[in-house]
Amino acid sequence: MERNRDIYQEPLVSRYTSREMQRLFSERYKFTHWRQCWIALAEAQHEMGLTAVSAEMVAQMKAHADDINFEVAETKEKEIRHDVMAHVFAYGQQCPLAEPIIHLGATSQFVVCNTDLMVQREAMQLIRAALLRAIANLAAFARKYAGLPTLGYTHYQAAQPVTVGKRTTLYIQDLLMDLDAIEHWQHQLKARGVKGTVGTQATFLELFAGDHEKVRELDRRVAVKLGFEQSFAVTGQTYPRKWDMKTAETLAGIGVSAHKFAVDLRLLANLKVQEEPFESKQVGSSAMAYKRNPMRAERTCGLARKLMNLPVNFAATAGSQWFERTLDDSAIRRMDIAQAFLLADAVLRLYINISDHMVVYPKQIERHLQEELPFMATEKILMACVARGESRQTMHELIREHSVAAAREVKQNGRDNDLLQRLGEDERVPFTTAELKKLLTDYISFTGRAEAQTHEFLDEIVAPVLQTHAGEFEHRDVTLEV
Amino acid sequence: MERNRDIYQEPLVSRYTSREMQRLFSERYKFTHWRQCWIALAEAQHEMGLTAVSAEMVAQMKAHADDINFEVAETKEKEIRHDVMAHVFAYGQQCPLAEPIIHLGATSQFVVCNTDLMVQREAMQLIRAALLRAIANLAAFARKYAGLPTLGYTHYQAAQPVTVGKRTTLYIQDLLMDLDAIEHWQHQLKARGVKGTVGTQATFLELFAGDHEKVRELDRRVAVKLGFEQSFAVTGQTYPRKWDMKTAETLAGIGVSAHKFAVDLRLLANLKVQEEPFESKQVGSSAMAYKRNPMRAERTCGLARKLMNLPVNFAATAGSQWFERTLDDSAIRRMDIAQAFLLADAVLRLYINISDHMVVYPKQIERHLQEELPFMATEKILMACVARGESRQTMHELIREHSVAAAREVKQNGRDNDLLQRLGEDERVPFTTAELKKLLTDYISFTGRAEAQTHEFLDEIVAPVLQTHAGEFEHRDVTLEV
Amino acid sequence: MERNRDIYQEPLVSRYTSREMQRLFSERYKFTHWRQCWIALAEAQHEMGLTAVSAEMVAQMKAHADDINFEVAETKEKEIRHDVMAHVFAYGQQCPLAEPIIHLGATSQFVVCNTDLMVQREAMQLIRAALLRAIANLAAFARKYAGLPTLGYTHYQAAQPVTVGKRTTLYIQDLLMDLDAIEHWQHQLKARGVKGTVGTQATFLELFAGDHEKVRELDRRVAVKLGFEQSFAVTGQTYPRKWDMKTAETLAGIGVSAHKFAVDLRLLANLKVQEEPFESKQVGSSAMAYKRNPMRAERTCGLARKLMNLPVNFAATAGSQWFERTLDDSAIRRMDIAQAFLLADAVLRLYINISDHMVVYPKQIERHLQEELPFMATEKILMACVARGESRQTMHELIREHSVAAAREVKQNGRDNDLLQRLGEDERVPFTTAELKKLLTDYISFTGRAEAQTHEFLDEIVAPVLQTHAGEFEHRDVTLEV
Amino acid sequence: MERNRDIYQEPLVSRYTSREMQRLFSERYKFTHWRQCWIALAEAQHEMGLTAVSAEMVAQMKAHADDINFEVAETKEKEIRHDVMAHVFAYGQQCPLAEPIIHLGATSQFVVCNTDLMVQREAMQLIRAALLRAIANLAAFARKYAGLPTLGYTHYQAAQPVTVGKRTTLYIQDLLMDLDAIEHWQHQLKARGVKGTVGTQATFLELFAGDHEKVRELDRRVAVKLGFEQSFAVTGQTYPRKWDMKTAETLAGIGVSAHKFAVDLRLLANLKVQEEPFESKQVGSSAMAYKRNPMRAERTCGLARKLMNLPVNFAATAGSQWFERTLDDSAIRRMDIAQAFLLADAVLRLYINISDHMVVYPKQIERHLQEELPFMATEKILMACVARGESRQTMHELIREHSVAAAREVKQNGRDNDLLQRLGEDERVPFTTAELKKLLTDYISFTGRAEAQTHEFLDEIVAPVLQTHAGEFEHRDVTLEV
Repeated sequence: MERNRDIYQEPLVSRYTSREMQRLFSERYKFTHWRQCWIALAEAQHEMGLTAVSAEMVAQMKAHADDINFEVAETKEKEIRHDVMAHVFAYGQQCPLAEPIIHLGATSQFVVCNTDLMVQREAMQLIRAALLRAIANLAAFARKYAGLPTLGYTHYQAAQPVTVGKRTTLYIQDLLMDLDAIEHWQHQLKARGVKGTVGTQATFLELFAGDHEKVRELDRRVAVKLGFEQSFAVTGQTYPRKWDMKTAETLAGIGVSAHKFAVDLRLLANLKVQEEPFESKQVGSSAMAYKRNPMRAERTCGLARKLMNLPVNFAATAGSQWFERTLDDSAIRRMDIAQAFLLADAVLRLYINISDHMVVYPKQIERHLQEELPFMATEKILMACVARGESRQTMHELIREHSVAAAREVKQNGRDNDLLQRLGEDERVPFTTAELKKLLTDYISFTGRAEAQTHEFLDEIVAPVLQTHAGEFEHRDVTLEV
Repeated sequence: MERNRDIYQEPLVSRYTSREMQRLFSERYKFTHWRQCWIALAEAQHEMGLTAVSAEMVAQMKAHADDINFEVAETKEKEIRHDVMAHVFAYGQQCPLAEPIIHLGATSQFVVCNTDLMVQREAMQLIRAALLRAIANLAAFARKYAGLPTLGYTHYQAAQPVTVGKRTTLYIQDLLMDLDAIEHWQHQLKARGVKGTVGTQATFLELFAGDHEKVRELDRRVAVKLGFEQSFAVTGQTYPRKWDMKTAETLAGIGVSAHKFAVDLRLLANLKVQEEPFESKQVGSSAMAYKRNPMRAERTCGLARKLMNLPVNFAATAGSQWFERTLDDSAIRRMDIAQAFLLADAVLRLYINISDHMVVYPKQIERHLQEELPFMATEKILMACVARGESRQTMHELIREHSVAAAREVKQNGRDNDLLQRLGEDERVPFTTAELKKLLTDYISFTGRAEAQTHEFLDEIVAPVLQTHAGEFEHRDVTLEV
Repeated sequence: MERNRDIYQEPLVSRYTSREMQRLFSERYKFTHWRQCWIALAEAQHEMGLTAVSAEMVAQMKAHADDINFEVAETKEKEIRHDVMAHVFAYGQQCPLAEPIIHLGATSQFVVCNTDLMVQREAMQLIRAALLRAIANLAAFARKYAGLPTLGYTHYQAAQPVTVGKRTTLYIQDLLMDLDAIEHWQHQLKARGVKGTVGTQATFLELFAGDHEKVRELDRRVAVKLGFEQSFAVTGQTYPRKWDMKTAETLAGIGVSAHKFAVDLRLLANLKVQEEPFESKQVGSSAMAYKRNPMRAERTCGLARKLMNLPVNFAATAGSQWFERTLDDSAIRRMDIAQAFLLADAVLRLYINISDHMVVYPKQIERHLQEELPFMATEKILMACVARGESRQTMHELIREHSVAAAREVKQNGRDNDLLQRLGEDERVPFTTAELKKLLTDYISFTGRAEAQTHEFLDEIVAPVLQTHAGEFEHRDVTLEV
Repeated sequence: MERNRDIYQEPLVSRYTSREMQRLFSERYKFTHWRQCWIALAEAQHEMGLTAVSAEMVAQMKAHADDINFEVAETKEKEIRHDVMAHVFAYGQQCPLAEPIIHLGATSQFVVCNTDLMVQREAMQLIRAALLRAIANLAAFARKYAGLPTLGYTHYQAAQPVTVGKRTTLYIQDLLMDLDAIEHWQHQLKARGVKGTVGTQATFLELFAGDHEKVRELDRRVAVKLGFEQSFAVTGQTYPRKWDMKTAETLAGIGVSAHKFAVDLRLLANLKVQEEPFESKQVGSSAMAYKRNPMRAERTCGLARKLMNLPVNFAATAGSQWFERTLDDSAIRRMDIAQAFLLADAVLRLYINISDHMVVYPKQIERHLQEELPFMATEKILMACVARGESRQTMHELIREHSVAAAREVKQNGRDNDLLQRLGEDERVPFTTAELKKLLTDYISFTGRAEAQTHEFLDEIVAPVLQTHAGEFEHRDVTLEV
């Protein structure tokens, strides 16, 4: 497609999202699914004995399910200013036999709402596959670095060591919460079904001569034909806008997970211990060739932020619908449902791309660890002193004083951490500096169960999920322009 | 309690919420549950053979589970500026035997996080009961008015008739979505468990001499003792802040449902067809005694609006936690988790109160219906004309013209709707005005399946839910100051 | 331009906004303004005696200010993945003489930030003109209906009469607050200026051999050449992202004003007293020809809602910029700055279109007024009774009782308000029904100073504003597709 | 005051805010200001010749301006459920002479709205003083460290050096934008004035027998008596809720500024180069005595986040007010106006406290600088090589290669930056390692104009502001519990 340089181009489309997702929110997708709705309705009406609707009519409609005569519809729409009626007309032109019964008994929202829900269903499926791919990537990464000790931080101050793999399990756990939300959403998804102008099915009751059970059956049957297990039990003119909130929240959750991960990665890049892949052809700052700017992670944060704040719009819309329906939902849903899915798509593309070849620098990790290790060993040293018969109380105070002094030394004089030396040189401490250093060699033990937790988590929780969905996510494309 | 007039009083507490909910977020509740955490830990340690922890110690701790020596704790806290350690100290004063083993191996977040989750669990249970009560109220109301026809609106313009009961099912369906969200939340709820400073369980692994399986068992056992089915598989220092998002979203959903209902009710009050109960002792505007201001519904909107916008805070917090934990979560969670539950409590109290004795004015409803009925009958009249052999095309155009003229007449001249008269007087129409009026008498038929839908919905969907939870919600207090 | 049916089209562009605004956010606008930045820089450098930059070079650059060789730039960008450098290259191809000095001493954000600010400046000017046009429309409307009494509502319950014009002044006052915000914004607007990579102007100080004053002068001179009065005193790599908040808030304010107006109008449409223009060619609902759905006002609400919620994104971005700059601002600003202006443009187009030919139905207004007038006259009747020697206390209670009964009658029996009759028939009241009715004839007096206030407001406050800006807004295009 | 442990305590009050601010939102402040409104009204009525209002009455009212008989008011309120009328009654008990004319012609919102605006006025003054104090603190800090070079970061990757003072000017500039917003707000602040039930001043026009000019004069005169320069030109029942948006945005801006500062400080604390003051009596983590957790900065982030997201609530309220007023504004404003001011108060207390004694570690700063300096000198080295006759092209490529290799070495092998050594040992480079190191000694020159900018900014921009407001902010209390 030609790029128009004279007017605004939506960056989500021109820069950040997959072609697959963009297609779901296209006119073509919409109008072909309107036709699917009309076919399902006519077919069900025919099956249920409505004589006005013949098998030939249905066959003719099916024959023209996909070859939309856009020009006819657009010309008609300009004239009557009503998109659904224009497409009924255009379809009728192609199906002269079926023309009188297309849309029989239905209101515009029959095709609009049901199609909206079909778009969402397919879009969520794409999101789920991408999410699984990101989980699989992180799982492989966590497995690889399950036992690599690294500084754990609270308050972004070194606390106790964890492992690179263990920290990664936290990101995975967040994504699994998103997966659970998606599956709950998918489980709850319903068609809007066949409900009529204000949801009373009045026209259909008339069509079926007052046979309530037939109308219910029509509703069910059309829902099933459109691939839904059921339809909303009751509706106004549209499906409840409260549903859209769930959709937005489900997608926003992915934004939150990705944002936390990406912020951490940006901090790790500063520490030079872990970073996003840097493609060989990628040029850094022209003036500063050595820089490895975490641009993907930064972009993730920006996109995720917008995604995280979208649900308020949906809440306001759902909470402000008056009675059977008001049209203040139209423009904002048209923008925001697409944006929510496109943003989630963009965020997950980045997540997959980053996690695919994330880089770790073990030597640099160890360097940071060594700098802080003496502090982290104070508990261990205390216990060793007590074991040699010293007073716990005395030793605790003594170690505390030296710790504070050593920390001050680092900051005030820019020196290395000399805590062990200070302790070793203090006569009251029953160990030499060398002996103290030896105590630190087994620092992997400082990480407690981190490695074991990682393997347990991957084996017991992640693996079953990935197995269940095997085949669903392997072939996701992840090429990305940065 | 004495009311302090000299400083700001939180209106949620002083005006809008139940005492039950306020108690859950009190210091007493928090500190007694900290002790429950310590008891569970000690007991599990004892059961699992940690000799340092004796049965006597546990017994002593249990004996002082509730009689918190607040003054001791507060004095200590002023000294050491650490609330958890201050309460460990105070507890130890009461349990001299257990003093050395209280909090053994644990970090502050062991009591803080697990207690937070217990508060939420109990608070959500209160919310669920209130929600069920609101659903039960609405169900009774819907049943009562299942067959009462009323104007259905799209664009807040009269569209086709529905019934009062049918419209009510839409509100119920929204609340059932909230109930589903609560139950999903409850199903997902987990303890933070026994995880240690940065989540590696390092101190516990040491306590159990490197026996990984025992540490896992300790984690599980304590979770069960605290009433959870399981604990989070992995954590940093705290349980994942992403969980708080789910909580906030679940509660915000109730805000959305209530807001839609309350806005509708405010519009209905203007139409004088339906309104909130007006208590006999309630005085309206002093100058305007006749006014029935829908103050409860208006208040619902204000409170719900705040509730609906809270989740963004949680998303931002969860997405900005660095590594194993940063403390930028503390102040905002302290305020917002309480606010979210209190707001939901306030909103549901209003919902219950309103729905308990909601007033309907059938005569006024009919008056509005009669005004618009001629318009709504145009389709029916058209069909009747065609049945008498008139051209559909001609009749359609003719009816359209008269409709537009009649509508103009109402607006421009403030007259009643005279469409039937216009049609009856038009020679081309094969009916007299009287005959046309007769066509309208059976206007209940205009409501299609509305009444049937209402009963089906109540029987098939609502009744089973209320039966399942029978006994849970009947005795909710609903007195309310307005 | 050809419409692409296979991928998502941004509805703001395809449906709601003006071509003028879309152009400001186009690639063409951006890249021609980058060139303006480069020209300003080179020219200033030349003027200030930098010998490397000759008059011929500047002349050559000016000669190619607008004829951008897009293909060259795009090919280069694909190669080096750096848009600014690609455009430096392309510009250099056209200006071989100037090639070595284009962008001399500058960093990418020199062109990016300054252009962003120029786009915003021009976009805000468009918004201001549209805002003035909306104000002018409303002012004419308010003048016309300054003295037309109508029901005033509190709690959406009839309170006391106001006039149609007086109510309109409230909408105008809101828009004047927006105008004030725009003017404050325009007054505060500054260039990012010439600041260098991290804001220290290091390269420029070198270029000018350590002459600080010259660097400051360069900064000032370039700002002026780009049409700014000054530049930010200090910056990091970019202008402060806090500025974007002001922009977003200024635009969001328009959303709030428009939303309040549009909601009121939707309610008025239901009352059939006031409505948006209905274009002759516009077809209503096909099945319900009489309906006049307030679609413009509804659309306004939807668009305004999105606009109102945008500032949180900007706050989060500004608050999360680390040190001299992080790139988490890029994607979100790219989307949201454009969206904020486009939404404001869309909202104001609707506002102008609606206010241009807003319809009023005085007869219907009077009908509603008459229904409630007896209630509103109770104070007046009370005073008349007291003037005839009755006890105030007795009369007050008596009137109160009849008022409540009359209100009940309306609601419960769907009858007209019979308060005057009730009072006239009560022997204790010293007036006949006819006399009481006469008391109501002068109901314009019930509106107090409403008419006078309207004229005062228009004369003293609105007229001076419109005069000051005369010529700025008259020719705004308002054709609109609905 | 006794602390209630059995119900929820608002943390903003119990933990974070100043007593001064809490008092402004107390009942006492509210009710005494209601009385001020009544006094102003009566006095103006008397001055303007309303004979019903005597000088004695006014004198009596003034005599009881502050000694509120709370119990009387509260008992009455329980009876009549109307707080304003209850306080009119209670005031009347104390002023028997004035009893008939208290509140003469007024509606409840006369006292409620005008008092709201007086509270805001005083609260904003407190905020302004605190803001100035924070600016003054930062200015002193920036002056002190104006010339101290430190790493500048883009993408949180070392870019080019700035100075500690220069970076600080960015925080000050943000706060000056907030100060400007406050001053604009203060300039725009108006009284609600004397407007009547629906804003038409009907009762006052009657009181003054139809004299419009007198009613306008009353409105003006009361506004001035209450300390305002003017009142809103027109109102519905209340002052426009759009005004509250401005208030919220003004305060939220402070949240944004503080959040950016606090995040930077948390990052600096990790780098051990700059940190918040650590009070001598403050105990760190008990187990980890060496830790200096940036708890104040973290708390700032949490509180600021809530503050930054509040304006959406106000936008929704303002945009949803129907006609002359709906009461959906009441509960949410009651909570959110207080919260916005309290949060801003809390945030600024933290900002002042931190900036009062912020700690800098120059040696540690230099250490980080030295590690990255070789990279930052590459441009300088390149120029020196060219000056010695080498090809720019060749040297550029050669330096680039060594830079990338050196950066890799740091990350992959955890070594120090050896770029200079690599270059010195490369025969093609016309300098020895020692010579290259010498090139770096003058690294202050890398900071360009940073030091000069700092002084210019402080002298030209900050100093005049602080001088203008001298005396306003010096004595702000900053003690803080952490």
